[in-house]
Amino acid sequence: LLRAGVDIGGTKCLGVVVDDAGAVLREERLSTPAGADALLDVLDAVAVVLSPYDSFGVGAAGLVSIDGVWRAAPNVTGVWDFPVGARLAARLGHPVAVDNDATCAALAEWQAGAAFGASDVVLVTLGTGIGGGIVSGGRLMRGANGFAGEPGHMVVDPNGPPCVCGRRGCWERYASGSGLARLAREAATGGRLARVVALAGDAEAVRGEHVQFAAREGDHEALLVIDQWAWWVALGLVNLTNLLDPEVVVMGGGLSGAVDLVLAPVRRHFADLLYAPGHRRHPRIEMAALGEQAGAIGAALLVEAHA
Amino acid sequence: LLRAGVDIGGTKCLGVVVDDAGAVLREERLSTPAGADALLDVLDAVAVVLSPYDSFGVGAAGLVSIDGVWRAAPNVTGVWDFPVGARLAARLGHPVAVDNDATCAALAEWQAGAAFGASDVVLVTLGTGIGGGIVSGGRLMRGANGFAGEPGHMVVDPNGPPCVCGRRGCWERYASGSGLARLAREAATGGRLARVVALAGDAEAVRGEHVQFAAREGDHEALLVIDQWAWWVALGLVNLTNLLDPEVVVMGGGLSGAVDLVLAPVRRHFADLLYAPGHRRHPRIEMAALGEQAGAIGAALLVEAHA
Repeated sequence: LLRAGVDIGGTKCLGVVVDDAGAVLREERLSTPAGADALLDVLDAVAVVLSPYDSFGVGAAGLVSIDGVWRAAPNVTGVWDFPVGARLAARLGHPVAVDNDATCAALAEWQAGAAFGASDVVLVTLGTGIGGGIVSGGRLMRGANGFAGEPGHMVVDPNGPPCVCGRRGCWERYASGSGLARLAREAATGGRLARVVALAGDAEAVRGEHVQFAAREGDHEALLVIDQWAWWVALGLVNLTNLLDPEVVVMGGGLSGAVDLVLAPVRRHFADLLYAPGHRRHPRIEMAALGEQAGAIGAALLVEAHA
Repeated sequence: LLRAGVDIGGTKCLGVVVDDAGAVLREERLSTPAGADALLDVLDAVAVVLSPYDSFGVGAAGLVSIDGVWRAAPNVTGVWDFPVGARLAARLGHPVAVDNDATCAALAEWQAGAAFGASDVVLVTLGTGIGGGIVSGGRLMRGANGFAGEPGHMVVDPNGPPCVCGRRGCWERYASGSGLARLAREAATGGRLARVVALAGDAEAVRGEHVQFAAREGDHEALLVIDQWAWWVALGLVNLTNLLDPEVVVMGGGLSGAVDLVLAPVRRHFADLLYAPGHRRHPRIEMAALGEQAGAIGAALLVEAHA
């Protein structure tokens, strides 16, 4: 069977066709437009290039309800409460499966990537925010609304910094890419991180990339900030592990380019923080293997995962 | 079919036989002894009273691994790393299913209690600590080790009070029965809670029962502590809901006698704290319906849930 999937991102729509093993046979990418009708045009155009295919799925950032309605779309303009599944199915003349992009990435990494062969998997995407997806007992977890696997707004410190969601101390305030930048700016405005500030030009201009660059040079203070950030990543992964008891934890998203810097400290802090460490097999902690195609590959695998 | 189940608690072993609808037909209780061999004798005696039955399950507090080994037993002496499933099966001459007691309670409340008819359920037991169990997509969640559904050691404040597990700020330090007592003692030693202190005799002697008693009298300060405690309960339930997206959240355990005091404030704080509240059906938040038999009823239903 040929399975087509499209990942609707904030800047581009990335489509793939995969074979039975999840290997990518064809790929197409077009810019993501603003507005629901323009988006349908683009998805239609991607579908034409991907043809022929036997099934079609879509992954989308934000909250996607179980009936294929895109309830909240933080990165794409004009598509809140948009029934993308039904509208696209009418347009293309065949069924369309829809789910959250990080849930698609979890499905892909489980079926064809870093968690291949496991039955219980948690994936988190560390980018501007934090997304997630869960496989439990060999099945994709969906939840009553279809919103299962949203770890970014897990509160890990009720007195922490304010979050866009209106509460305080959500995990993504610490452990996302913007969390790394925030930790670095705190250190920089406190008079530390001289090399990072020199790279950025100004303490307020410090971004995660500057920290990563300095850390790769061996800058000790930058490595300390990376370690502090890795501690917060590990803390959330431990919370997820207490609840879900996965065999594999996969870290993906925009920060996967920092793999060589963060994987070792995240693993070390995770082992320190894990509950009842002597009584369990610890989950493997792995970086995502499928890169930017993960969401599209998972979208292509949705039809069977939703069955 | 007649299904037998035994809940091994810190003070008693409670056994039941249930019918196909989960209704209790027979019950037996014996004191829980110290030591593995004495415990097997007691379970054997309970099984004799419960006979005849077609299947047999056991629920046990602590960490129960997927192969039926009781890895950690905080409330029962002498049974750490005890292969209770295999040993009891050899003794009784038939298979025995084993799982965590709160996971059994979740199974029971889902099949025959407060969450009947739902497909996605989270149960938490609020007692000395906090246990839990998860039903996802109409299946009991087990996890790679069998440890899924342990929310008590979710860290909700890394700078919070030390926990028995070695970390700080675990949810059960705030939201369990002992968490309520701790919040009350903090208020009492800070010069508040005059009525509660009068009931307890001394600020350091304040327990959750004193707060509940004063709150039922209408004591304003006691009600404020109940509300503060309910806020912490709700915070954790929101974290669980972000991850698991349940249709029903069930609160059980030793505090279920406080239902009339806590249910309303927990529901109110939950609605305030929920992520993306306008984009989802909110889960129902219910008190457990099966009382102290929940664990035993769930144990009786384990064989089919594990199949």
